[in-house]
Amino acid sequence: MSDDLCFTPATELAAMLRRRDLSARELLDAHLDRIDRTNPQVNAIVTLDVEGARAQADAADAATARGESTGPLHGLPVAHKDTHVTGGMRTTWGSPLHRDFVPEQDELVVARLREAGAVRVGKTNVPEFAAGSHTYNTVFGATRNPYRLDVSAGGSSGGAAAALASGMVALAEGSDMGGSLRNPAAFCNVVGLRPTPGRVPSHPTQMGWSTLSVQGPMGRTVGDVALGLSALAGPDPRVPISLTEAGAGFAAPMPTELTGLRVAWAPDFGGRMPVDPEVRAALAPVPQVFESLGAHVDEACPDLDDADEVFSVLRAWLFVASFGDVVTRHPDQVKAAIAWNVEQGRKLTGQDVARAETLHTRLHHRMVEFFDSYDVLLAPTTQVVPFDVDTEYPAQVDGVQQDSYLGWMRSCSMISAAGVPALSVPAGFTDDGLPVGLQVIGAPRADRRVLEVGHAFEQATGVGRRRPTLTP
Amino acid sequence: MSDDLCFTPATELAAMLRRRDLSARELLDAHLDRIDRTNPQVNAIVTLDVEGARAQADAADAATARGESTGPLHGLPVAHKDTHVTGGMRTTWGSPLHRDFVPEQDELVVARLREAGAVRVGKTNVPEFAAGSHTYNTVFGATRNPYRLDVSAGGSSGGAAAALASGMVALAEGSDMGGSLRNPAAFCNVVGLRPTPGRVPSHPTQMGWSTLSVQGPMGRTVGDVALGLSALAGPDPRVPISLTEAGAGFAAPMPTELTGLRVAWAPDFGGRMPVDPEVRAALAPVPQVFESLGAHVDEACPDLDDADEVFSVLRAWLFVASFGDVVTRHPDQVKAAIAWNVEQGRKLTGQDVARAETLHTRLHHRMVEFFDSYDVLLAPTTQVVPFDVDTEYPAQVDGVQQDSYLGWMRSCSMISAAGVPALSVPAGFTDDGLPVGLQVIGAPRADRRVLEVGHAFEQATGVGRRRPTLTP
Repeated sequence: MSDDLCFTPATELAAMLRRRDLSARELLDAHLDRIDRTNPQVNAIVTLDVEGARAQADAADAATARGESTGPLHGLPVAHKDTHVTGGMRTTWGSPLHRDFVPEQDELVVARLREAGAVRVGKTNVPEFAAGSHTYNTVFGATRNPYRLDVSAGGSSGGAAAALASGMVALAEGSDMGGSLRNPAAFCNVVGLRPTPGRVPSHPTQMGWSTLSVQGPMGRTVGDVALGLSALAGPDPRVPISLTEAGAGFAAPMPTELTGLRVAWAPDFGGRMPVDPEVRAALAPVPQVFESLGAHVDEACPDLDDADEVFSVLRAWLFVASFGDVVTRHPDQVKAAIAWNVEQGRKLTGQDVARAETLHTRLHHRMVEFFDSYDVLLAPTTQVVPFDVDTEYPAQVDGVQQDSYLGWMRSCSMISAAGVPALSVPAGFTDDGLPVGLQVIGAPRADRRVLEVGHAFEQATGVGRRRPTLTP
Repeated sequence: MSDDLCFTPATELAAMLRRRDLSARELLDAHLDRIDRTNPQVNAIVTLDVEGARAQADAADAATARGESTGPLHGLPVAHKDTHVTGGMRTTWGSPLHRDFVPEQDELVVARLREAGAVRVGKTNVPEFAAGSHTYNTVFGATRNPYRLDVSAGGSSGGAAAALASGMVALAEGSDMGGSLRNPAAFCNVVGLRPTPGRVPSHPTQMGWSTLSVQGPMGRTVGDVALGLSALAGPDPRVPISLTEAGAGFAAPMPTELTGLRVAWAPDFGGRMPVDPEVRAALAPVPQVFESLGAHVDEACPDLDDADEVFSVLRAWLFVASFGDVVTRHPDQVKAAIAWNVEQGRKLTGQDVARAETLHTRLHHRMVEFFDSYDVLLAPTTQVVPFDVDTEYPAQVDGVQQDSYLGWMRSCSMISAAGVPALSVPAGFTDDGLPVGLQVIGAPRADRRVLEVGHAFEQATGVGRRRPTLTP
C-alpha cells in the first residue's frame, strides 16, 4: 500500500491532499519508509532530514485543517539537487571542500518549491561540482540505477532521477548544462525537462546572462514535471534573462492527441553522431506511435554545425569563471575533469569566446527557422544505454572512440548550445531491461509544447509506468 | 503653418490622421519642405527618398480612404539611423566602405516602423560605425546642433536627434551602447529612450545575447517616444533576449503627477565623475520640480563601482566581434577610434570577459536592490554641454583630463553597464542657449515607469517646447 502511494503521480497526490483524502504526514511517512528500504542500495539521497520534513508535513496538515490557501505542491515530498543551496541543510556540491557546509539561505529554485508548499526531505547526489553525466563523488560515492544496480543513473541530476525512479520523492529538481536533467531521466525511466533559459530563473549566479546551465523540474510523469514547472517558472527581478510568463499555466490539462503535429524525427541527428544499436532498436517504434496520434512525421534534423564548438567553448568559459579559483587554491581536492575544464577555459581568448557567441547566435537562428517547418524535433536523449557504474564515462559509442568525457553526451549538449527546450520522456527498454529515453525538442520558449507532446507520447506508450524491481 | 505641423507632437498628428483632419501626403510635404530649408544647415538627413516617401504617403491615404485598419504610426514621417539596414535604401554606417551599399531587406526595427504605418523619408547621420558620441564621418561630414550650428548634435544617433529638433521628421529611432540615444537627445532638446535590453528586439545581430547595444525610439515629447516604443517593442522569436510584453501598452495615457514617488537625485553620480558647472546649474531646479509634483526626493546614488570596467571590456569585446574583420581587411579605411577599440578587444582573454560578466551580474543585482528603495534615479544625461562641432570629443570635463574619448560619456555608459532603462528628457538651457538633458533611470524592465516620470517632468517644465531658431 505505502509503495503504491510512492508511485502515484504527484498531480494525483496533490489532488488527494487538497481533498484531504490523504495527509501530508501520511504521505511523507510512506516516502521515508521507502527511502529507508531502497536508498541503501541506490544511494540517491545523501542528506536526509527526517525531523525537519515531519515538522513541515505537520505544518502543512495544520494549514489544511485551518482551511488556509495552499500552494500547488502543498504537502508533496521533494528533494533538492546537492549543488543547489538549501538554507539550514548541508550543501556539498559533491566536493570534499564543502563536506560540512550548511548555508543560511535557500537559493531561488529551492525557495520556490518551499513557497509552493513542498516538503523538503533532503538532498540528491551529484557528480563533484555537477561536472560529468555520471553521479559519483568522493564524499558520498556513486548513485546506482534503480533498474539495475550495476549501472549508472546518469548525471549530473542522477540522485534526483534515481530517487524518483525508486519512489523516494514525489517530485525533484535539477540543473542541465549539457544534459544533466535529460540523460539521468532517460537512464532511470523518468521525465526531465531542460527548460528554455530564463524559464526557471536562477539566483544567485556567477554570470547572470549565461544561458548554458539552466535549472528545471524532474518527475515520474510529464504531468508531474509540468506541475513542478508551474512552481519553478516565472520572472524574478534579479534575473535579467528571466522570462515574463507566470508559471501557473504550465500545469493546465494537456491533450492526448497530436492531430496535425509536424514532427521531425532524427534518430542519429542526421548522421551527426554514433548511436548504440540498442538505443536505436528501443526507439524504432517512435515514428509509428506519433503517426497513430495523428502527427505527420518526416525524418529531418536542423543544421547543428558548430554546436560542439559553441558548447565546449562556452562550457570551458563558464568553468573558469565558476571554478578557476577553487582549482588554483585546492588543486589536489578537485577531480581531474574540473581541472581539465578550467584549463581549457584559461586558454580561451576574448576572440574565441566572441566567435563562440557569434556561432551560438547563428545556431539559434537556424533552430528558429527549423521550427517554422516543424513543431517538434524527436531524437534519442542519450547515444548510449546506462553504462557500468564503475566506469567514469563511455569512451566509445557504437564502437567509435570519443575525444573526451563529453563525447557521449553530444545528443544533449548540442541541444543545450542551440538554446531550445528539451524533454526526456521514457520511451522503451533494451532487451536487458535498461531504460531508453526519447528527447522531445521544441522551438525557443515552446516549453509548453514539448510538455504536451511528451505527455501524449507517454499516454500512448505507458513505458514510464514500469517500476524498477528493487528488493525488498 | 507648415512649420507648426512639423513641431506638432506625433501623438497629435497620429490622431489628426486617424480623424482625416490631415492627409499623410500633406504632412509629408510639410516635412519635405522643412527638410529642404533646414537640412543644408544641419546635415541630419543623409539619404532622402522623396519619391518613395510620397508613394508611401499616398498609399497610406488610400488605405485610410478605403477604411482599412491602420497601424499606430500610420502616415507619420520617420527616418532611420544610417547604421540600421533599410531594404532598397542606401545604408552606409557612415563608412566609405559602404558608401554605395543598398541592402535588400529591412532589419527588424525598420520593419516594425514600416508595419506600424510610418512613412520612411530617409536615413539619419551617424559617426562611422556608430562609434563615439559626436556625429561626423568622411562620407557625409558632421551633423550640426539645430540650437547652435557651431556645436555638436551628440551621437551616435545625432542625425536622428537633430532631425527631430529641426522638425524634419515626426519620429525617429536610434541605438544606444554607451549613451547614443540619450546624449544626442540631451544636446538637441529632444527625448531619447535607452530601453531595457530585449525590450526592442534587434535582428539580425552578431551576438544575440549581448545586452550592451540596444535600439530604441526618439521623439520631441515623451508621449511620442512612448508611441514609438509601442511600435518597436514586443517579442520576436529570433531574438533570445526579447521581452515577452506586447508593445501596445506603452502608448497608454500617462499621469502628470508623481505623488509618493521615491526619487533618488544624483547630480554627479555620488561624486563618481566631474560635471560641467553649466550642466549642474541647468539641472539645479530638478529636485524642487519633483517635489512640486508630489515626489519625495533624496540625494542618493547606487553603487556603480566596476561599471567602467564592465562597459569598457564588454564594449571592446563587442567591437572585436563586430569590426575585427573590417579593421584587418581595410586598416586604412576605418577611423582610429574603431581600430583602437578592436585593439583593446584583441588583448582580452576569456578570463577578462568572464570577470567583466561576473561584475556585470553583481552590478545588475545592486541596481535591483537600489530600486527596492527608489522608484527612479535622476542624474545628468551628459557631463558636458554640446561642444565645438570641429572637436572630436571633449578631452576635459570640468577641468579634469579624461583617459579616452569615452570619458565624457560615463554618465550614460555606466548606466548601460547596469542593464537598466534610461530616458533623456529636456531639462533646461545654459545661459548660452545650449540644451541640457535630465536622465531618468529605472529598475530593469521599468521602461513604462521612466516614461511616466519623464512625462510628468516634461509637462511641469515645458522645456522641450522651445524650438531652435534656424533660419529661414
